[in-house]
Amino acid sequence: MTVRVGVIGTGVIGQDHIRRITEVTPGGRVVAVTDVDISRAGQLAAGLPGVRLHRTGQDLIADSDVDAVLVTSWGATHEEYVLAAIAAGKRVFCERPLAPPADAAMRIVDAEMATGQRLVQVGFMRRYDPGYNALKDALDAGQAGAPLLMHCAHRNPSAPPYGFTTDMIISDSAVHEIDLVRWLFDEEIAVTSVLRPRRTSKAGEGLHDPLVVLLEMASGILVDVEVFINAGYGYDVRAEVVGEAGTLALADTGEVTVTQQGRRGSRVPANWRERFGRAFDAEFTDWLRAVAAGTTTGPGSWDGYAAALVTDHCLQAQSTGSRVAVAMPERPDFYAKVQE
Amino acid sequence: MTVRVGVIGTGVIGQDHIRRITEVTPGGRVVAVTDVDISRAGQLAAGLPGVRLHRTGQDLIADSDVDAVLVTSWGATHEEYVLAAIAAGKRVFCERPLAPPADAAMRIVDAEMATGQRLVQVGFMRRYDPGYNALKDALDAGQAGAPLLMHCAHRNPSAPPYGFTTDMIISDSAVHEIDLVRWLFDEEIAVTSVLRPRRTSKAGEGLHDPLVVLLEMASGILVDVEVFINAGYGYDVRAEVVGEAGTLALADTGEVTVTQQGRRGSRVPANWRERFGRAFDAEFTDWLRAVAAGTTTGPGSWDGYAAALVTDHCLQAQSTGSRVAVAMPERPDFYAKVQE
Amino acid sequence: MTVRVGVIGTGVIGQDHIRRITEVTPGGRVVAVTDVDISRAGQLAAGLPGVRLHRTGQDLIADSDVDAVLVTSWGATHEEYVLAAIAAGKRVFCERPLAPPADAAMRIVDAEMATGQRLVQVGFMRRYDPGYNALKDALDAGQAGAPLLMHCAHRNPSAPPYGFTTDMIISDSAVHEIDLVRWLFDEEIAVTSVLRPRRTSKAGEGLHDPLVVLLEMASGILVDVEVFINAGYGYDVRAEVVGEAGTLALADTGEVTVTQQGRRGSRVPANWRERFGRAFDAEFTDWLRAVAAGTTTGPGSWDGYAAALVTDHCLQAQSTGSRVAVAMPERPDFYAKVQE
Amino acid sequence: MTVRVGVIGTGVIGQDHIRRITEVTPGGRVVAVTDVDISRAGQLAAGLPGVRLHRTGQDLIADSDVDAVLVTSWGATHEEYVLAAIAAGKRVFCERPLAPPADAAMRIVDAEMATGQRLVQVGFMRRYDPGYNALKDALDAGQAGAPLLMHCAHRNPSAPPYGFTTDMIISDSAVHEIDLVRWLFDEEIAVTSVLRPRRTSKAGEGLHDPLVVLLEMASGILVDVEVFINAGYGYDVRAEVVGEAGTLALADTGEVTVTQQGRRGSRVPANWRERFGRAFDAEFTDWLRAVAAGTTTGPGSWDGYAAALVTDHCLQAQSTGSRVAVAMPERPDFYAKVQE
Repeated sequence: MTVRVGVIGTGVIGQDHIRRITEVTPGGRVVAVTDVDISRAGQLAAGLPGVRLHRTGQDLIADSDVDAVLVTSWGATHEEYVLAAIAAGKRVFCERPLAPPADAAMRIVDAEMATGQRLVQVGFMRRYDPGYNALKDALDAGQAGAPLLMHCAHRNPSAPPYGFTTDMIISDSAVHEIDLVRWLFDEEIAVTSVLRPRRTSKAGEGLHDPLVVLLEMASGILVDVEVFINAGYGYDVRAEVVGEAGTLALADTGEVTVTQQGRRGSRVPANWRERFGRAFDAEFTDWLRAVAAGTTTGPGSWDGYAAALVTDHCLQAQSTGSRVAVAMPERPDFYAKVQE
Repeated sequence: MTVRVGVIGTGVIGQDHIRRITEVTPGGRVVAVTDVDISRAGQLAAGLPGVRLHRTGQDLIADSDVDAVLVTSWGATHEEYVLAAIAAGKRVFCERPLAPPADAAMRIVDAEMATGQRLVQVGFMRRYDPGYNALKDALDAGQAGAPLLMHCAHRNPSAPPYGFTTDMIISDSAVHEIDLVRWLFDEEIAVTSVLRPRRTSKAGEGLHDPLVVLLEMASGILVDVEVFINAGYGYDVRAEVVGEAGTLALADTGEVTVTQQGRRGSRVPANWRERFGRAFDAEFTDWLRAVAAGTTTGPGSWDGYAAALVTDHCLQAQSTGSRVAVAMPERPDFYAKVQE
Repeated sequence: MTVRVGVIGTGVIGQDHIRRITEVTPGGRVVAVTDVDISRAGQLAAGLPGVRLHRTGQDLIADSDVDAVLVTSWGATHEEYVLAAIAAGKRVFCERPLAPPADAAMRIVDAEMATGQRLVQVGFMRRYDPGYNALKDALDAGQAGAPLLMHCAHRNPSAPPYGFTTDMIISDSAVHEIDLVRWLFDEEIAVTSVLRPRRTSKAGEGLHDPLVVLLEMASGILVDVEVFINAGYGYDVRAEVVGEAGTLALADTGEVTVTQQGRRGSRVPANWRERFGRAFDAEFTDWLRAVAAGTTTGPGSWDGYAAALVTDHCLQAQSTGSRVAVAMPERPDFYAKVQE
Repeated sequence: MTVRVGVIGTGVIGQDHIRRITEVTPGGRVVAVTDVDISRAGQLAAGLPGVRLHRTGQDLIADSDVDAVLVTSWGATHEEYVLAAIAAGKRVFCERPLAPPADAAMRIVDAEMATGQRLVQVGFMRRYDPGYNALKDALDAGQAGAPLLMHCAHRNPSAPPYGFTTDMIISDSAVHEIDLVRWLFDEEIAVTSVLRPRRTSKAGEGLHDPLVVLLEMASGILVDVEVFINAGYGYDVRAEVVGEAGTLALADTGEVTVTQQGRRGSRVPANWRERFGRAFDAEFTDWLRAVAAGTTTGPGSWDGYAAALVTDHCLQAQSTGSRVAVAMPERPDFYAKVQE
């Protein structure tokens, strides 16, 4: 079965996913698009044979030729479209964030639980990265013993040219690690705090960059995350889990070792596309395969809710300078474990 | 357009490619199969909806529902099927070797040229490996200056349990490097010789393992290839190009650095599937995309011929212990350059 | 000139330094020893031709054949011997800690300043490690731009079998990084706090292992130090400075890359002797050369005082769980900069 | 006992060793010098208190205050001085080459054997490199199983500005590997040949650079040595032993990993002084310790002879393009094994 996908939101990320479904991953086909900028969506549809243009997301969701919905519109509209897809009984892939603030995400959780089955997948693509998966496999195989600490670095070459704020260092960047450690350790985050190292002179006004986000897991595992938006030299994501018997770290990803002019070394990715391209491909391959099989298995709405809730607490920790306990409700049995 | 593929040969490698076309790469669909063991092919067809069983390769090639042919049968049958596909005007992907000995490959070259267009792709999948491609990109970008030498190692964990011979170290293993260096340097191999290091005690009787194959390119670049079939520790493919200004080497592929019990290190692939899985995926994605676009762009029948010819000379060098000049005919304009 | 050294304290570390001066470093000769266990010192003297035994440290310091004094006795006795050496106008090398608590170290500072010249060197041997020196050189050369953060790990294979306490994780282990970052960044530590990750089950009762010590430098550089006494797998000291333009990290120290049984990697040092042997050698070579030249140039009594003061504040931070500002007095002009 | 050393030859390398004995290694003191340029030696002596100037090497050797002789004069004079030292019954350290051609070295062997004890050490300093020693230890411990092949690279940044010839690539550079593999594998070299890769455009006229020297050990182990004098990027010495169970390679020597401008990597040494400084220090420490103990334990005159003999055969192989068997005489019992 080829899954017929309708896409709500045809901006940069939406177009990239359309290309991915069309050219890279098997098992899916884009059949319908829409966008708040209807002319942009129209141009796109005109260039893709067999793709229908819809005036609204609601119309697209109602289209009986659409098997599954991909939501890549502006974050504030996510709740409406995801709820509509759930109401229509259609599987939906929603890009991050699921639906800020956390209570919006919780409404999606409630609606999905009311249907009795999982329908929603959230775009936490790092869970599909070969490196993180190899790390999780090694951890689960006990190669490091029981985990005690984790050191992370999340470095971007530079902030977007427009108004990137200190809060966005947490909500747009650190949120990846927030989800990742829940998945990696299969437990919730209990306490957060945020440290402010010396500020880089390369950061725009009002941006306190870098930050160090501390996440204390329920079992006591301490995770420190250096988030550095204007690191300058490249896009560099690093992680090391320290356990009772050893450590596990993401290896370098450079394909070629160059020795030249007195130095031996390899390439650091230029940006997140280069670093996580394979993860995005694997994510969509997996989602389409699951949809074709009548299931949804990736990170779900509870993960979207949990990430939103922890993010909110981190923002509070950032603004107050205090350690903040996370008031996480009990996970419903419906989401029996952190979704894998 | 979805390319409808007919598969001749449903052994281990044929089944792996069927899985690849069905589950991994976009743009293709298996519609017909056949095999010398017709019951094996029949069982396979029974399990794949919409796949037709043919009694012979010729029948399969004649099937008007088959757009393109994949030949993964026993090597000795390649010539017949590839020539039949060419005669039917159908694009064909033929696994290595194209058609031993070299004169059989030359008959395919002649038949293809007579049609006036390239139809044949040969399964030299290393050209699709991300590592080798990054190495070629760096080389072409001049990062090492003009190339002078190349050191290669090609290590397997162990020989197959059945009769693997010294000649097969060259024809089955070194042939990968033989093709690769032609592609990498975009020139032909002019002279070959074979050295016999101390023999491992792990090799079966009659197998002189390892060997060192020396390939002298037309421009004088000297390539040494250690081919070690019973290396024991894993599947390890290494390459370093030494140029006037620096060197370029394949980096390690391990995803995770494990520190444990006094050692820090990472995984070596267990076998060629693990090491080159991504290359096979890219190879088929590329072939299907080209076929859909009405072209063939990968390694072609001239490459298959050249590899066979150099292999023959290496075998002669191996048995005589001498340096052997390769009597390579002028490349026809039709194959304007080493195919990329 | 060969410096004639008198050694107070002939325990394990004292004997190691006697061997070092006798066999490894040029420019010095051990001429006198003493120890609280006078028979141990006597046996040692009997085995070393030309070495005189003294009943007390005071006698040894008064010996006119002793040019310079090495204090490797129990920490609580350091103050007395260092002050006596200063009073005798003799140069003195004192192993860490200079003289706990901080006010004892301050009495040494005062006594030394009263003489008008630097006489005291403290055994912070990491300042002589080739790795840290290469890191400092690269930092000072601007290769990472202005420093913003530093991540450190300080891992021992296991705690000593006797009563190692949580406080000692700071006073015996983290103290190395406390001194090191003052030297590396050439500025003082302004604030400290201590985090408690999940505790390893390998730690003895009452030992909260590992800890994370946070050091905020005067300029805002944030240093996190994972100190893990029962890391199990080896002795592993790691450091990465993150600057505005890049990062600088200690490289691995393994001499040989071993590829075997599916893994490629290298050795992690077994203990601090293996890791820092060269640093100890360089430290003594440097001290003896300086003494022969009539100076003292290594880490001095102000560094010993500062390390003691920061350690005291870290202990307070550890017990209270709070961030603690360090009440560091103005550095006297006499110690014009962090001693190099 | 402090060994009193007389130095014959106060050029660059002689002065470096005088500095080493004076400032770096314990156990020795330079007491006498001479040089063919007597004014150069005189100036040097004037600057070193307690150092006597001699008119000739023979005078220096006869000086009863000289315990041991260091020969760092021009190669053609080595035979005369080493024989004189042997005749005087004094231990002698002779820089490479011991005494070209091979028959001169054999005269030294004969003279030394006639004295009934080993007196001569030859300056093959790589045997003291920590990396090669760790590699030998791992090999001897069986970590790679029985050795079958070895791949070496020996790269200099550039040829000296004056007349460096193709023969000198072998006699001045490859000779290091020639000695090293005899020591590493504890067996002789049986056959040699020399390959000529494409020539770098950076080499001066008449210099065929790089070369590949093949050394076949008596047991069949095949060693390939890329010797590249104008490698441009730095001084890079690499080695990998391939055994039946795994491989052992020299690790990178960079102390700091720098991540900057899209690349992560570390330093390659700039020259042989940087790469092998520690080996020279260890070599002299060891020689002086042995002399003080009344023995000579390092590489000896038989090693000097064997290296000269293999070098001669390599030169012949280079000029003829043929494989050349090495006519190595039986090693006398006196040199019971490759000297360690």
